[in-house]
Amino acid sequence: MKQATAIAHPNIAFIKYWGNRDPNLRIPENGSISMNLADLSVKTTVSFGNEEEDCLILNGTPADASALQRVSRFLDLIRGLAGIHERARVISENDFPTGAGIASSAAAFAALALAATAAVGLHLSEKDLSRLARKGSGSACRSIPGGYVEWLPGETDEDSYAVSIAPPEHWALTDCIAILSTHHKPVGSTEGHALASTSPLQSARVADTPRRLNVVRRAILERDFPALAEMIEHDSNLMHAVMMTSTPPLFYWEPVSLTIMKAVREWRASGLPCGYTLDAGPNVHVLCPSEFAGEVTNHLKAIPGVQTVLLASAGGPARLVKE
Amino acid sequence: MKQATAIAHPNIAFIKYWGNRDPNLRIPENGSISMNLADLSVKTTVSFGNEEEDCLILNGTPADASALQRVSRFLDLIRGLAGIHERARVISENDFPTGAGIASSAAAFAALALAATAAVGLHLSEKDLSRLARKGSGSACRSIPGGYVEWLPGETDEDSYAVSIAPPEHWALTDCIAILSTHHKPVGSTEGHALASTSPLQSARVADTPRRLNVVRRAILERDFPALAEMIEHDSNLMHAVMMTSTPPLFYWEPVSLTIMKAVREWRASGLPCGYTLDAGPNVHVLCPSEFAGEVTNHLKAIPGVQTVLLASAGGPARLVKE
Repeated sequence: MKQATAIAHPNIAFIKYWGNRDPNLRIPENGSISMNLADLSVKTTVSFGNEEEDCLILNGTPADASALQRVSRFLDLIRGLAGIHERARVISENDFPTGAGIASSAAAFAALALAATAAVGLHLSEKDLSRLARKGSGSACRSIPGGYVEWLPGETDEDSYAVSIAPPEHWALTDCIAILSTHHKPVGSTEGHALASTSPLQSARVADTPRRLNVVRRAILERDFPALAEMIEHDSNLMHAVMMTSTPPLFYWEPVSLTIMKAVREWRASGLPCGYTLDAGPNVHVLCPSEFAGEVTNHLKAIPGVQTVLLASAGGPARLVKE
Repeated sequence: MKQATAIAHPNIAFIKYWGNRDPNLRIPENGSISMNLADLSVKTTVSFGNEEEDCLILNGTPADASALQRVSRFLDLIRGLAGIHERARVISENDFPTGAGIASSAAAFAALALAATAAVGLHLSEKDLSRLARKGSGSACRSIPGGYVEWLPGETDEDSYAVSIAPPEHWALTDCIAILSTHHKPVGSTEGHALASTSPLQSARVADTPRRLNVVRRAILERDFPALAEMIEHDSNLMHAVMMTSTPPLFYWEPVSLTIMKAVREWRASGLPCGYTLDAGPNVHVLCPSEFAGEVTNHLKAIPGVQTVLLASAGGPARLVKE
């Protein structure tokens, strides 16, 4: 039987991906930079050949039709590459709480891309694996290489992929993720990306991206935390500015998100090195040098509306695991 | 003795003024549209000739040096027009709570422009009065004409002034102002305007303004509340997007502001006609057709963190009053 298992980590973007130049191929409008999250992972096992139809088990439960269809279309790409027609069973497990608002699609499609290609005997380069994962979920391309990662946006399927700019051990940062007690289901990012162009601010945000990428890339290479903190907050604000001014407007921030954002700026002004960033959801990711993670966590837990805080340090690449 | 008294109303912008083409003359980067607020007013009496130095009494208390200096420089413009050198006593009273976060500078400079010119015997046209008030506080030019007002941005001192696009009785709208229980002193708008150009989004916001002005002008003329509500929210979000992405970032929203903004969108989706807009402060202005003001007020008062709700309908122009 053709079977393989892979693990991949979610990633938190320091410079955000929002809006596609090509929504089908998921070629982004702008480059982005992220950190893989070591302490959170998705493990996926793919087995080809024993099924009549593709099937998908997520955390022990058969997935709904739309999730299965998205995975099945992605598997079609791999069947095309391998020249096979067999259906697959995909079993995927998160080791972080589902429903906590941590996007798992980046890690899920990175692990799926690696496990499925290995199962059919394809051994893709990191670049080609990143290109493939991108077609499942744009930011999944950043969960293929290790550590601190830049997605070179490119203009075609060929040249849009992610590369590592520094390994995890280059810089001991921790992402303290404030999980909020909220039950609003936010608009999914695939639908969200499609709205980016309706904001009169998106073109200006995209045009300004090289400046921000340069600052963050340099900050990572030189381990310049103050510069990193200011720029990840600015970039997060820019993405949410576009979201809130699209038609219809997307408000991913909850009131507690704003409370935390303001608090983080005050903590930093008082000497605690930390900086916030928010993806397409209400949870606030507070980055800090790892030695301050305990202090940041205690501060976050004291804010009413924070349900729990998850911690994650810089993580490695997507990788195969022996069963 | 040369003395006169004038009353003017604050105004709430439907399309916002943010950023100056010329900060000294307060020539704005974009046009704006507002509604005067009938139920709030500033009354100002100016007397020339009995003083050694200009003096300024605000709500019964001598003003601080920076407020006095700003007024004194403004009086210099009027002394220049009238060819006099006498100093003045300025006594100004708000009929709305000070410290409630309602910007009074628009009403204050509109009333001052009218009272001071009348006191020295100058009888300016509405246009010239609007041009003059603009130099004291940009949005003061919109508190000179009555009702629903558009500031034609112009490019020079000559052609930057406000005109009425509809009288107050054209459309019975009410501004339900949710005053929040907050004690943060926000960054003043004069300093704020100077930061607008540091946002990578400001140029795009400015370039897009004619579209928004056209929608709001038409919505007022045709009394199209749904179109007005969507566009004032969009425009407010655009201004705050620029503020939050300037360097340093300006966050005028408080968490409760965001709670109200989201609630207003839900109320509207449920059939209650209302729409929000926020100036350079945390209070939320909720506009509605006047027959719904009671229902909107009750909803607002039920939100924890709302201290009180002030109501204001469409107001008239700046005007002289007999003592």
